[in-house]
Amino acid sequence: MTPDIAAARAALGHLDIDDNPVSVRAKSRDFFWYSPVLKARLDHLTADFVVAPRSEAEVIETLRVCHAHNVPVTVRGAGTGNYGQAMPLAGGCVLHLKHLDRVTAVHPGRVICQPGALLRDVDAACNAHGQELRMFSSTWATATIGGFIAGGSGGIGSCTWGQLRDLGNILRLRVVTMEETPRVLEFRGEELSRVSHAYGTNGVITEVEMPLAPAYDWVGLFVAVDDFDAAARLALDLANEDGILIKLASVFEAPTAQDYFQRVRPHIRDGEHLVALMIAPHAMDAFGVFLSRRPGARLIYRSDAHDWDRDPGPVFEYGWNHTTLRALKVDPAITYLQVLYPGDPYPKMAKMRALFGAEVLQHLEVIRAGGTCGFASLSLVKFTTEERLEEIVRLHEAHGCFVFNPHRYTLEEGGRQHRDEGQLSFKREADPKGLLNPGKMIGWDDPDFDYATIWHYPGMKAAE
Amino acid sequence: MTPDIAAARAALGHLDIDDNPVSVRAKSRDFFWYSPVLKARLDHLTADFVVAPRSEAEVIETLRVCHAHNVPVTVRGAGTGNYGQAMPLAGGCVLHLKHLDRVTAVHPGRVICQPGALLRDVDAACNAHGQELRMFSSTWATATIGGFIAGGSGGIGSCTWGQLRDLGNILRLRVVTMEETPRVLEFRGEELSRVSHAYGTNGVITEVEMPLAPAYDWVGLFVAVDDFDAAARLALDLANEDGILIKLASVFEAPTAQDYFQRVRPHIRDGEHLVALMIAPHAMDAFGVFLSRRPGARLIYRSDAHDWDRDPGPVFEYGWNHTTLRALKVDPAITYLQVLYPGDPYPKMAKMRALFGAEVLQHLEVIRAGGTCGFASLSLVKFTTEERLEEIVRLHEAHGCFVFNPHRYTLEEGGRQHRDEGQLSFKREADPKGLLNPGKMIGWDDPDFDYATIWHYPGMKAAE
Ligand SMILES: Cc1cc2nc3c(=O)[nH]c(=O)nc-3n(C[C@H](O)[C@H](O)[C@H](O)COP(=O)(O)OP(=O)(O)OC[C@H]3O[C@@H](n4cnc5c(N)ncnc54)[C@H](O)[C@@H]3O)c2cc1C
Ligand SMILES: Cc1cc2nc3c(=O)[nH]c(=O)nc-3n(C[C@H](O)[C@H](O)[C@H](O)COP(=O)(O)OP(=O)(O)OC[C@H]3O[C@@H](n4cnc5c(N)ncnc54)[C@H](O)[C@@H]3O)c2cc1C
Repeated sequence: MTPDIAAARAALGHLDIDDNPVSVRAKSRDFFWYSPVLKARLDHLTADFVVAPRSEAEVIETLRVCHAHNVPVTVRGAGTGNYGQAMPLAGGCVLHLKHLDRVTAVHPGRVICQPGALLRDVDAACNAHGQELRMFSSTWATATIGGFIAGGSGGIGSCTWGQLRDLGNILRLRVVTMEETPRVLEFRGEELSRVSHAYGTNGVITEVEMPLAPAYDWVGLFVAVDDFDAAARLALDLANEDGILIKLASVFEAPTAQDYFQRVRPHIRDGEHLVALMIAPHAMDAFGVFLSRRPGARLIYRSDAHDWDRDPGPVFEYGWNHTTLRALKVDPAITYLQVLYPGDPYPKMAKMRALFGAEVLQHLEVIRAGGTCGFASLSLVKFTTEERLEEIVRLHEAHGCFVFNPHRYTLEEGGRQHRDEGQLSFKREADPKGLLNPGKMIGWDDPDFDYATIWHYPGMKAAE
Repeated sequence: MTPDIAAARAALGHLDIDDNPVSVRAKSRDFFWYSPVLKARLDHLTADFVVAPRSEAEVIETLRVCHAHNVPVTVRGAGTGNYGQAMPLAGGCVLHLKHLDRVTAVHPGRVICQPGALLRDVDAACNAHGQELRMFSSTWATATIGGFIAGGSGGIGSCTWGQLRDLGNILRLRVVTMEETPRVLEFRGEELSRVSHAYGTNGVITEVEMPLAPAYDWVGLFVAVDDFDAAARLALDLANEDGILIKLASVFEAPTAQDYFQRVRPHIRDGEHLVALMIAPHAMDAFGVFLSRRPGARLIYRSDAHDWDRDPGPVFEYGWNHTTLRALKVDPAITYLQVLYPGDPYPKMAKMRALFGAEVLQHLEVIRAGGTCGFASLSLVKFTTEERLEEIVRLHEAHGCFVFNPHRYTLEEGGRQHRDEGQLSFKREADPKGLLNPGKMIGWDDPDFDYATIWHYPGMKAAE
């Protein structure tokens, strides 16, 4: 099953196609380099050409032609994914969805749009109707809604609404298959989990319908807290105030803000931990009462009334994976881990802080799961070697913490380390030749893989 | 301090005043008669006259005049309260707020209105802006917003937003005091708890500002479930689905629906328990998935697509205290208790069901408290004697259940049986003569009361 790149490229010549090696390489890369582990393995990769379809019909045409010529196809939204999700491991075609950016309709409680629309632009269209997305990635300004659904998990808004995978947080997806004659399918309800968070391995999403929440002029806040547990409790307790509507509650262990948040640094004291919040404007009085009951906490910034010389920008661009980005910009040795603390999180966090000190800094995001608010940590890690990173993972696990490893490029290894039968069986139907984003679903290539070490996709293009 | 009724009445003669004994008596009564205990004690009560002010200035004038003549004043919204809250124990003046019914302004996330506006009319004004009240009493069609704030606790919407007393669920109250020269005060934040749920004992609310939620065409549903625990779990688990937006989840133990819900009866089998839900229309697909995972549950009604001969009306008019109302209409011996099941509710509910059988039927409402969903039960009780009712309360308490006694007319006895210092100290300021809704705050009249038996207000008018 050898790909015939030249034939496919020729057959698609009438579309918006790019085969300039420099720009093709740029469009073949995402934020995989956050991980030194992935950087060492994926840096050389590039596709052969990029097609940017202008309609669903052109998506279908591209998939039909690539199928005929055995050419791998990796879908690309904006390429802001972290795990090499959008890296074309076997080369071939990158299907760039930048032209499919239309917001089709906004109804009470839901929006219908094309996958290549930026989260920011979807929100702008919804704002005109007093609405906004329930949740968004902190890459709101640059990422697409299709990429968020196919590659993301949750983000700003997850403290209230849970994550994308929760029932009700995606309403409908329209999906094109990669077959001799591609089919167009509509998924709702139970079926949505087949293609959401599947990295585009089993279909190309061409239309999405998402639930909305009311839009508010969210007030962004920074609160400095003298004690780490008190900072964490402030964030979690606030999320548990049923009458106070929030969209974000993030906690940054000292000296994260002091070292990496340049515009916050002048306003925070040594040793103080930082909490970032987004609160509905009409809840600010109630928040004032809440805060007045916490003597160790100082409000240092509110976006609707502040005297900071240099505006810090949206507070959500300090949270989620933007924390890592800000740290990386100052210290290129920084990477991160995604950690859950099952049960009572406070003793587990104390243990990790005692164990690792400055090598691992806590960065907590409050998320709701199964009706209950808790912490997801995107801990900042000072990287030294792959061996030490593995050891840090093992030490977390040994203390009952659950690690989602962001230093893996497959669906299974980044998640719960077992394959998703629904996604796999749909891939068998929708992509019988295994050409969609090859190498990202271990269950397809190596059903007996034991997860003892990082998986190597045998079909990966070699470095030149 | 003898009231001079005639002098006050004469001084207020230019206002909308009523002293026809028949209509005054009607305007002096609320839904106290739900309780046979209160029925035996309060049935004879009536005010001397009713004033219906047309402006805040007329509220001030009425309070000033009544203060000067030592005339008690009991505020009245719509008189749908259950605990004799609006019954003028010492006679005097009923201050009827029916004319103060204006909705002044609707902003994103909040509404400003007068206290005498019906909940239904506030919602109608907000609906024009795509918004609605976060929560409302099941007496939405007839009750006022001021009465809800001064006398209510929560209701439809509390499964998402908690209760009125939670921080952020009331934004601002404007309050007139009962002094020689009444003052007009504005309360926000911490101060709100002084006058909310104070039965109008320490000030008259003349303007309210309430937070809003987005308005949806909520789908009302009835689900029949073969097992009681499964019915309760269905309601609670649904409330814990973070991506499925609901406004109501009520559970009715069999044979509540069979015996008391006439339009539901033809559609439910013997022994089946009933769950009533309100779900956002865009969450119906996700609810379908949720329901398909529960084999013992049958969807028997959805308001947006049904073939019932006789429309059951809004499902929320089956929940909260409307359950008791429907049961009472069929069986006048029915009354109720308000019960909380701390900790794991299921064994406690099983114990109560085993202990009381048909004498006490579980009626659960899902409410959110401190970020966590749980049950409040408004159990239906077949009343025999006051002694047996007390015993039923004691047996609940003996098994670790917490009872809010609805068979009491004071603030303290219906609640946590201790006085609210904030409300009491504000009464000292705002109502120095103790003329506002006298007899409802034990802390004012008898600070040493021990709660061993029902309290008797010594100033209560005797039956003729
Ligand atoms: C600084 C930073 C912060 C971040 N914060 C968050 C965060 O808060 N929450 C979060 O969830 N993620 C976060 N991410 C990851 C990422 O930005 C988001 O998931 C983002 O929404 C991805 O969108 P994209 O358009 O860039 O997708 P891409 O990176 O282009 O694609 C992501 C994956 O989806 C597939 N895909 C894209 N479009 C389609 C389609 N139409 N059909 C099928 N498959 C498709 C791609 O093949 C790829 O596998 C962050 C990343 C960075 C670098
Ligand atoms: C069938 C039924 C169902 C019910 N369901 C619910 C429910 O779901 N949730 C709930 O919380 N309650 C419920 N109730 C109780 C009651 O209906 C509500 O609390 C309702 O909102 C009260 O409004 P109202 O206008 O009738 O107040 P009223 O009964 O007139 O007054 C209630 C109390 O507030 C005081 N008051 C009224 N207006 C003012 C003001 N402007 N300033 C100061 N004090 C004032 C009165 O003096 C009185 O003490 C129910 C009652 C019935 C009969």
